[in-house]
Amino acid sequence: MENICLPSGFWAHGIRVEIKTQGKDLGLIISNPPSQFFGAFTQNSFAAAPVQYCKEVLKSGQKISHLVVNSGNANACTGPQGLLAVQETVKALRQGFPRAEGVLVASTGVIGHQLPLEKITQGLNSYPSLHTQTPNEDAFCEAILTTDLVKKETAQTLQFASGTVHLGGVCKGSGMIHPNMATMLAFITTDIDLPSHFQNQFLKIVEKSFNSISVDGDQSTNDTVFLLANGASGVSYTHLSPTEQAQFVEALQNCFISLAKQIAADGEGATKLVEIRVTGAASADEAQKIARQVSNSPLVKTALFGNDPNWGRIVASLGSLGLAIPQDHCRITLGDQILFDKGSPLPKDMPVLKKTLSAKEVVIGIDLQRGSSDWSFWTCDFSYDYVKINAEYHT
Amino acid sequence: MENICLPSGFWAHGIRVEIKTQGKDLGLIISNPPSQFFGAFTQNSFAAAPVQYCKEVLKSGQKISHLVVNSGNANACTGPQGLLAVQETVKALRQGFPRAEGVLVASTGVIGHQLPLEKITQGLNSYPSLHTQTPNEDAFCEAILTTDLVKKETAQTLQFASGTVHLGGVCKGSGMIHPNMATMLAFITTDIDLPSHFQNQFLKIVEKSFNSISVDGDQSTNDTVFLLANGASGVSYTHLSPTEQAQFVEALQNCFISLAKQIAADGEGATKLVEIRVTGAASADEAQKIARQVSNSPLVKTALFGNDPNWGRIVASLGSLGLAIPQDHCRITLGDQILFDKGSPLPKDMPVLKKTLSAKEVVIGIDLQRGSSDWSFWTCDFSYDYVKINAEYHT
Repeated sequence: MENICLPSGFWAHGIRVEIKTQGKDLGLIISNPPSQFFGAFTQNSFAAAPVQYCKEVLKSGQKISHLVVNSGNANACTGPQGLLAVQETVKALRQGFPRAEGVLVASTGVIGHQLPLEKITQGLNSYPSLHTQTPNEDAFCEAILTTDLVKKETAQTLQFASGTVHLGGVCKGSGMIHPNMATMLAFITTDIDLPSHFQNQFLKIVEKSFNSISVDGDQSTNDTVFLLANGASGVSYTHLSPTEQAQFVEALQNCFISLAKQIAADGEGATKLVEIRVTGAASADEAQKIARQVSNSPLVKTALFGNDPNWGRIVASLGSLGLAIPQDHCRITLGDQILFDKGSPLPKDMPVLKKTLSAKEVVIGIDLQRGSSDWSFWTCDFSYDYVKINAEYHT
Repeated sequence: MENICLPSGFWAHGIRVEIKTQGKDLGLIISNPPSQFFGAFTQNSFAAAPVQYCKEVLKSGQKISHLVVNSGNANACTGPQGLLAVQETVKALRQGFPRAEGVLVASTGVIGHQLPLEKITQGLNSYPSLHTQTPNEDAFCEAILTTDLVKKETAQTLQFASGTVHLGGVCKGSGMIHPNMATMLAFITTDIDLPSHFQNQFLKIVEKSFNSISVDGDQSTNDTVFLLANGASGVSYTHLSPTEQAQFVEALQNCFISLAKQIAADGEGATKLVEIRVTGAASADEAQKIARQVSNSPLVKTALFGNDPNWGRIVASLGSLGLAIPQDHCRITLGDQILFDKGSPLPKDMPVLKKTLSAKEVVIGIDLQRGSSDWSFWTCDFSYDYVKINAEYHT
């Protein structure tokens, strides 16, 4: 399956420079023509050096020709030396590609260790000759993985009156946070031409997708989502009809949600993907708060692992936000079955519920029946393996 | 060890009325003279029927002569019938004790099932004759337990110029939330005379103790803390010297913290008690937020279970609050060892750290070095047994 190189004008590859104990660990995306760039970053106060650097690039409004990413070292909590290492990485890239415009850098891996700069600069030296070859998206995907069990990718083609537009994306991450080995990185490419003010729309889509998943409720020092739009298709978003613009935004949101769901499904120790679908809320903010709260509840997540239709834990979790939700207006569903309605529990068809809970994808509905706003969060169950992975990992 | 009956004028007992599958499940405290009453309740929007009732009693300012508590049924999410059941309980109590003044009711146990009212009223009928016997604090303690592995109690005696004052307390709970079997209930008695405006001071102490523990970060529909002060010692708080008043408040806070720590240490699946001690914060609010955030992090808690001095997870967790904390001002300690300081990691003495982490009590220090406020939270580690207890429990 094609992903980030499906849109015209993108090239990607990955090589091994021995930062990780095995596998490829240095990837590069080249955009020709250079891309308008949209970014969303971790809100963590301890944002890693590459995140601090890329925020400045975003402010500068530069177009992006190259994106360097390494796995095996997060370059986080590394002080001034870490920031210097990012600058040296960019410098090394420019030596091999003298006509480079804006350069982005992303890292994922262990925290609190200085970046092995020599390995990275030597690796970057080999890219100019590699660039003469065909792109290798699989190699790029491998170069960004850490504890992920599966590759996460998506692609879509859209037909507009003015031409054909492609979307492609890859991401990595098996926990919102896992600061010693993982983080969430997502790279989405498109050959449409996007105006810089699309950033607001981009952030809204991020909110509905990557910011609406949870494995363990925390966030990493390195979380980053990049969208690169190089306009190589000749189609301009600004010149699309309003209907076509809405169509593009929806397709982009579907790509983001697809990638986000793949991360939640591959959550550490996860045996199933769970959607917490809040409807009938008084506001989007209320719906989002409740969806997030229930998604993060260890009690709800362990019950899901145990295939127990434990609506009491769901009610208690959403109630613990202290919002003014009338008890007698809330309906909890599991698949098609109503578990709790109008303040009272309903009889349970256990064989049906067990079957619903045993599936790879489970939908829990929370209908507040007091408005028209909704929000979905995607999470996973909480298993013995989650504890095993995180207790046995040693720094 | 004596607890709630150490202060003069309190009597307590517990009997079995077969709400639970085994053990005592209906307890009674009698205060003679009746007590000034201070209460703190769950903020959960789905507060159980007895909580809704007791909030009204608190508003009325009545003195309390009787406190009825049952385990095995939470009387939560039970609608109007649940509220009626509380009223019937109070009525039954008054039939046996016609001179009763204010009556409090508390429940803990399964959610979403109507209270077995007949068992409770029959049980209450047997209390007037039982009341002629000596109190039995152990029986009361047993009557409030659900999944707790150990009994939790405290007692203290204070000498003031005007006389001797006693404090006693018991509590139950092995998770801040565990809505199908558990909740946190705490009952503290004292024979000092306290003015009604002590409620604010009481709430501050609750904030520093019962609201500063976390097993899984959620809160139950039934959480309640009651302080009963009957004045039987002849000592009045209002007439104490300022130094003595401060002494009493400190002793009361120590009692509350002692009980709260006993709950965290008995957290579901816990192998150790962990204090997250934030110091040097710009405000108490900042210190409290950080202490709570780190206490609730599943990644920090699994690392503690694995005896891993994983400061990266601590830094990432506190950073994820998005507070404006300068990276180079934060110091993380484990016991006496500094793990991270001025934005960089320090060399680790692994044998010493492993020994510190293997103890039954572990202190993690987070010194923000930018102010003089501090806050401690008590939590426990996150083990296989936590998942086992909560995944294997079936509704």
